[in-house]
Amino acid sequence: MPWLKNLIKISKTISNQSSSYNKSITPLASPLLTQFLQFTKQYSTNHHVVGLEATKSDQKPRIVVLGSGWAGCRLMKDIDTNIYDVVCVSPRNHMVFTPLLASTCVGTLEFRSVAEPIGRIQPAVSTQPTSYFFLANCNAIDFDNHMIQCQTVTEGVETLEPWNFNVSYDKLVIASGAHALTFGIKGVNEHATFLREVHHAQEIRRKLLLNLMLSDVPGVSEEEKRRLLHCVVVGGGPTGVEFSGELSDFILKDVHQRYAHVKDYIHVTLIEANEILSSFDDRLRVYATKQLTKSGVRLVRGLVQDVQPEKIILSDGTNVPYGLLVWSTGVGPSPFVNSLDIPKAKGRIGIDEWLRVPSVQDVYSIGDCSGFLESTGRQVLPALAQVAERQGKYLASLLNKVGKEGGGHANCAQNINLGDPFVYKHLGSMATIGRYKALVDLRESKDAKGVSLAGFTSFFVWRSAYLTRVVSWRNKLYVLINWLTTLVFGRDISRI
Amino acid sequence: MPWLKNLIKISKTISNQSSSYNKSITPLASPLLTQFLQFTKQYSTNHHVVGLEATKSDQKPRIVVLGSGWAGCRLMKDIDTNIYDVVCVSPRNHMVFTPLLASTCVGTLEFRSVAEPIGRIQPAVSTQPTSYFFLANCNAIDFDNHMIQCQTVTEGVETLEPWNFNVSYDKLVIASGAHALTFGIKGVNEHATFLREVHHAQEIRRKLLLNLMLSDVPGVSEEEKRRLLHCVVVGGGPTGVEFSGELSDFILKDVHQRYAHVKDYIHVTLIEANEILSSFDDRLRVYATKQLTKSGVRLVRGLVQDVQPEKIILSDGTNVPYGLLVWSTGVGPSPFVNSLDIPKAKGRIGIDEWLRVPSVQDVYSIGDCSGFLESTGRQVLPALAQVAERQGKYLASLLNKVGKEGGGHANCAQNINLGDPFVYKHLGSMATIGRYKALVDLRESKDAKGVSLAGFTSFFVWRSAYLTRVVSWRNKLYVLINWLTTLVFGRDISRI
Repeated sequence: MPWLKNLIKISKTISNQSSSYNKSITPLASPLLTQFLQFTKQYSTNHHVVGLEATKSDQKPRIVVLGSGWAGCRLMKDIDTNIYDVVCVSPRNHMVFTPLLASTCVGTLEFRSVAEPIGRIQPAVSTQPTSYFFLANCNAIDFDNHMIQCQTVTEGVETLEPWNFNVSYDKLVIASGAHALTFGIKGVNEHATFLREVHHAQEIRRKLLLNLMLSDVPGVSEEEKRRLLHCVVVGGGPTGVEFSGELSDFILKDVHQRYAHVKDYIHVTLIEANEILSSFDDRLRVYATKQLTKSGVRLVRGLVQDVQPEKIILSDGTNVPYGLLVWSTGVGPSPFVNSLDIPKAKGRIGIDEWLRVPSVQDVYSIGDCSGFLESTGRQVLPALAQVAERQGKYLASLLNKVGKEGGGHANCAQNINLGDPFVYKHLGSMATIGRYKALVDLRESKDAKGVSLAGFTSFFVWRSAYLTRVVSWRNKLYVLINWLTTLVFGRDISRI
Repeated sequence: MPWLKNLIKISKTISNQSSSYNKSITPLASPLLTQFLQFTKQYSTNHHVVGLEATKSDQKPRIVVLGSGWAGCRLMKDIDTNIYDVVCVSPRNHMVFTPLLASTCVGTLEFRSVAEPIGRIQPAVSTQPTSYFFLANCNAIDFDNHMIQCQTVTEGVETLEPWNFNVSYDKLVIASGAHALTFGIKGVNEHATFLREVHHAQEIRRKLLLNLMLSDVPGVSEEEKRRLLHCVVVGGGPTGVEFSGELSDFILKDVHQRYAHVKDYIHVTLIEANEILSSFDDRLRVYATKQLTKSGVRLVRGLVQDVQPEKIILSDGTNVPYGLLVWSTGVGPSPFVNSLDIPKAKGRIGIDEWLRVPSVQDVYSIGDCSGFLESTGRQVLPALAQVAERQGKYLASLLNKVGKEGGGHANCAQNINLGDPFVYKHLGSMATIGRYKALVDLRESKDAKGVSLAGFTSFFVWRSAYLTRVVSWRNKLYVLINWLTTLVFGRDISRI
């Protein structure tokens, strides 16, 4: 078990550190802890690693959920907390309502309207005495001993170094998501902004407003002004297209009104290696291309080769100067998933039809980090919110059933009938393209026939559909009010 | 003129830098610029400093406003843009509605509800061709030549170094505000957070939520948990008291519900060297003390001597460990005001009864950065929003009158009758103290008699009064909705 060796190393480092730091991480002097220390002693002596020990048969079994995205949050929402304790381990304390994230970059929606705190999705983690939310990353899993190793996220606190702790699980749900793909292109991580988290959207908004203001200050050349206000989006999937649409709306409505001095300098370019919106119906794709072009978005077919601080270089040698670069070329396996020594499916954690990781006991995986094993005869599902959410819902009901039948504790579910396997039925795809227009593609798959819509009706369907999906009533209200105030007063341009 | 020497130094540095940088700041090739370069040549040769040249007699006169606080924004709002061009120079593009800022730290209100973009307050700066908002700091003023020297704020853009530019004025209004006082105590700037800007409130909120989450992770000692969750407020003026009240509300309502595991560890301590709310009526002060104590705020009479990363040390030797330290001990002159070579009043820019800086032509000063000269026989007014706002309003009407009578251009207002001098009448003071209670003191001065209220009625008066004062309809709506949703759903606890 290599991770245990690391654990020992880390613990030793900790015990060698200054006394004031030791003070801050001395273990809780509780009977629970004493038991836990005895439990961990079998792995290593003379160091302190604390955490949650294994549950006893007279205690509620513990479900540990890694991640707080669509999959993990839907699971937590539906888990029966009368049967299980829930422990969520994630580096962020909220779920992001990703389909509306692009709208927050330009102020159509506010950041908090698309963020749902975990405690609002599953109140047990904050109110039940033995359910928890831990702001941490999981670094390693000891499948044999039903235990994970975590490290806290202390970014923002100067006085605390991150520390390690262990959590024993009865059931483990790996829903830690995927990472943005950069295809190894140099400079992407340094100079581009992704669009996956709220802090990405905040960064984009701050940069955009700063560039708008700086380009209006005396002393900026014409060329530099054009560069500062050139917004380049790489990746023509729904996120890239929606962001381009939102940007062009922002330019046509708000920049023309509120940054009149520089309105003729701002431009949007969308770079895609293949077709934009490749998963959509041909007719919709043509419509989207026409609409985006009409709104002033320049569509460029090209392959990015190098990203530099002020320009990107395409494979045909073209230089594209930019002031804002948003990178949205899909997702791939995260370093954490890569580090796990279990069978994979296209780099993702391999699962069976019941979303279990078949090689180990009591471990499940859902969302973008998992994919059906080849042995299931099924295709790896696309990395979509609706797949993740449906899997979370299915797995919650499966685990509730297992728990009700007495299989909640570790190694106790072998003889329980799991019921029907998970079946995914695609409900369709949607994307806005700006100017109160959207695409709705209700075909079940790329090659199937079915209804597809484009235009204002689709836009209305898009907004209504997402409004009903926003998790909490509080955020439903805020999304609605944000939309109304944007319509009446325009977008908010304070750079805070 | 020492600033001109500096200017030359800076310009020389710039012209020695790499060619790619030079490219980005080459001057605009316009006839205006040519004239300006000729104009600046009289000060220095062989370098390029660009900017706005002096207006001609057939052009609109230009008012330059330094700062975007209560004083500057009220002035800009009321300035007649048919008479004047307005140029605002400020390091932030919005006004902060400071009386409600404390509420944003714990999520009672959202950050954007208390920030008003300058372009919403005075649309001319973004729509009129010769009015501007410049995101910059003013570094020096050449009173003789009616010109200011500015430097852009480029924090957040890696590819641009800050650059200098000049702006000529016909009328200059210095409303650049004051700086937080630290009394030279070591460690305040490094470890404490002030509460004057939106980014301060954001920092406090992020820190508070992080500490709440970290203290719930296994491996934190009891002592460390108590430290992390000890919120210390230094300064018992209205800001310190209101923030303490908001914090105790947050603890009693939201922490008890949403951070139930650690609710018994969180405490608030308010440290004040003298009496809290010293400007308020005795009866109100007693009431506030009683209410705050009842809400769990520990009031400590003490003098801070040293601020260290994890604790503060009082003058009597007491160590106070803290997880969050908010510093709010009043304001004093800023380095910029100190650098100006003009007569001062208690360190502030000395002004006469018409808010003019009497030693120079066409310069006015309002808000926290200015004070009546001793020769006026008046007292320096307190650094309050209502003083600043009233001065802004008065000065706008004075300048509108001057402009209408043909005195708008530089050196043209000597023979114009300025009308009545500025007279300040204190309308009273208000402060919330948490738990839907507030203080309203309607006495004209500290020693006068008059009405004073405390309790829920005052709270209602407080909220109504401020709601009507919020500048835009958009933000009025958002403040109202924030209050309602906080009441119904509780405060938002996503750490974004």
